[in-house]
Amino acid sequence: MLGEVLSAVRSRSPLIHCITNYVTAGDCANILLSCGASPIMARDPDEVEEITSVCAGLVLNLGTLDRQTVPAMKKAGRRANTLGHPVVLDPVGVGVSSLRMEAARSLLDEIRFAVIRGNSSEIRALAGVPAGSRGVDAADRVAEDTLDAAVALAGGFARRAGAVVAMTGTIDIVTDGAAAFCIRNGDPMMGKVTGVGCQLSALTAAFAAACPDKPLEAAAAAVTAMGICGELAKQRMGPLDGSGSYRTYLMDAVYHLTAEQLEAGARYEMR
Amino acid sequence: MLGEVLSAVRSRSPLIHCITNYVTAGDCANILLSCGASPIMARDPDEVEEITSVCAGLVLNLGTLDRQTVPAMKKAGRRANTLGHPVVLDPVGVGVSSLRMEAARSLLDEIRFAVIRGNSSEIRALAGVPAGSRGVDAADRVAEDTLDAAVALAGGFARRAGAVVAMTGTIDIVTDGAAAFCIRNGDPMMGKVTGVGCQLSALTAAFAAACPDKPLEAAAAAVTAMGICGELAKQRMGPLDGSGSYRTYLMDAVYHLTAEQLEAGARYEMR
Amino acid sequence: MLGEVLSAVRSRSPLIHCITNYVTAGDCANILLSCGASPIMARDPDEVEEITSVCAGLVLNLGTLDRQTVPAMKKAGRRANTLGHPVVLDPVGVGVSSLRMEAARSLLDEIRFAVIRGNSSEIRALAGVPAGSRGVDAADRVAEDTLDAAVALAGGFARRAGAVVAMTGTIDIVTDGAAAFCIRNGDPMMGKVTGVGCQLSALTAAFAAACPDKPLEAAAAAVTAMGICGELAKQRMGPLDGSGSYRTYLMDAVYHLTAEQLEAGARYEMR
Repeated sequence: MLGEVLSAVRSRSPLIHCITNYVTAGDCANILLSCGASPIMARDPDEVEEITSVCAGLVLNLGTLDRQTVPAMKKAGRRANTLGHPVVLDPVGVGVSSLRMEAARSLLDEIRFAVIRGNSSEIRALAGVPAGSRGVDAADRVAEDTLDAAVALAGGFARRAGAVVAMTGTIDIVTDGAAAFCIRNGDPMMGKVTGVGCQLSALTAAFAAACPDKPLEAAAAAVTAMGICGELAKQRMGPLDGSGSYRTYLMDAVYHLTAEQLEAGARYEMR
Repeated sequence: MLGEVLSAVRSRSPLIHCITNYVTAGDCANILLSCGASPIMARDPDEVEEITSVCAGLVLNLGTLDRQTVPAMKKAGRRANTLGHPVVLDPVGVGVSSLRMEAARSLLDEIRFAVIRGNSSEIRALAGVPAGSRGVDAADRVAEDTLDAAVALAGGFARRAGAVVAMTGTIDIVTDGAAAFCIRNGDPMMGKVTGVGCQLSALTAAFAAACPDKPLEAAAAAVTAMGICGELAKQRMGPLDGSGSYRTYLMDAVYHLTAEQLEAGARYEMR
Repeated sequence: MLGEVLSAVRSRSPLIHCITNYVTAGDCANILLSCGASPIMARDPDEVEEITSVCAGLVLNLGTLDRQTVPAMKKAGRRANTLGHPVVLDPVGVGVSSLRMEAARSLLDEIRFAVIRGNSSEIRALAGVPAGSRGVDAADRVAEDTLDAAVALAGGFARRAGAVVAMTGTIDIVTDGAAAFCIRNGDPMMGKVTGVGCQLSALTAAFAAACPDKPLEAAAAAVTAMGICGELAKQRMGPLDGSGSYRTYLMDAVYHLTAEQLEAGARYEMR
């Protein structure tokens, strides 16, 4: 099932509109090309509707948000909603800034998201659960003993938001509020490279755009794919390789990932 | 002849002012350093004239354009024109947004470009030929059977624009409207890395700045150099290497490229 | 002593707020993760104070400055000053633009900097010594015969600015106006990758944030660490490796650098 989503991305090659931060924009564009999709980055309010119209999916990423980009996000989001294209929200650092929280809330009010993808701190903050976020590359706190509570929290937020929620960390939870994938792929090295979360959100938009009627499976496939690639990249590391080489290997692994590898490597249970 | 252009870049080390998108700005700066030139990125209208004045060339790239950057591009372009420094236009995604098309047209009206470098969709759109662009990393459609028509189109546009036109794809066409290089270097992997076109435009500005009286040869040398490096990078790929490693190898190849390699590896005919 | 600073970074893992250019923002974020710190990038005036408040250090980088970012830099800087967090200034290209010079001067007037990190051209320009800067990746001109004069210049500027000055180049000078480290680590390849200076400034902010009461030692440790990593990266280069691979190896070297390596590899004398 997850493998079919990847095959759909490779065969349909969806064009994804990214309104995203300038820190990891290049990495987001590259991961989209690696997985078989194509990127287009645009954020001027005067062109985002046209851009979204020629695309199959949209990702809105709050990293390095500036106030004037919010109207562009709304215009693009509304257009994607009208066209029935999946929209992914990545609420980068939403817990540490009122600007980002207000932007996220107002986007959630006005735009229908297919998937909301964030780390544990970000999803907790968005869901209204107090949590001390520690930057945008925050370590996750979902572990075995807190997993049930985390699934409940993510599921409740998914139902309220009417979206699939992908809360990523040591254990990733992908849920639409009815079913939940608890995914155990990945590697701690993924936290030593900036923007792996941003890349995953872009990947999620591509996967959802290739299978617009299955956002839960698409998001689970994207999260699992990234996790497996994180493991493959780690296995490839030599003694001198560090976070620089790891970043390259991660991109390479996404480029080579097959549907069979994705099916065989996936480690998850449903809750 | 092409090799001499590269030698001139290495010996003169031109400083290139880039007003460019935030997605690939780092890659553009790095490719300039790799080829022996130097980059400076600046886009505030209050400083672009000063910056351009200390540079030898200028590249204007429409990727992630915002409306307020257009006046800065014009100020920088006019100053470069006054100083006789070559200006390169990269009309990224011009076919998919009115904002970018209007900006490109108004830049073409007010600035004298040495070279206009884009993919087939972008050049067709600029030249007023209807074409369904598909994002900024669009696959090119120039093949053997459409080559003559493409040369005619690019040549006609070059004459009207008073600039060298470099239309890149499977076969690259570089023409001033009188003579045309049809260049058969390159590798499909170049389309799997974002911003290779942006990098090529920056490289073209460096090559043109090193040989300001030979924009046709300079553009042809830049396009050929990038194509050869694309081939060298491909040859270097191991079984686990994908688009991530390829991006690094491409940069490495530009760093090591010699005038002799460029002469020996160039595959083109004149039309 | 230098090794202890690195150990403090690894154990305290300071969160660093970067207001920085879009060309090298990703590299700055990655170097912070590589050294054991964490990055957060934010520049909207409406959120920078909140962001700075959850961080341990701040870096203000003038690359690709636009006028509207200066107020955000001041707000963040004042907040960091109030909290007693170290602030690092990187005056990228300050010698080539009045906008950047005015911004730098007004930041120096209003903000108390722990460290000012720039290349020789930038520090000379800031200190009011005429010098023909050549872009942002300018070659340095501090050599053996001009070292005493450079130490005197940097020291005088450090005293007037009330900050540690780190003037980097072939020989790096780090001084608070009383003592000066003259550091002979590094490799010319560092000048072939864009943003190594920006990365060093981010690293310096992390090192200073981990040891806020020892800015001179922290800056010297950061500069020495980067220089040693530049050497290690060079040693790792194979015949096909160029500036692309070097950039990755530099990141890897910072990831693996130990306190012992830093102590053993440091080559400096005090003046």
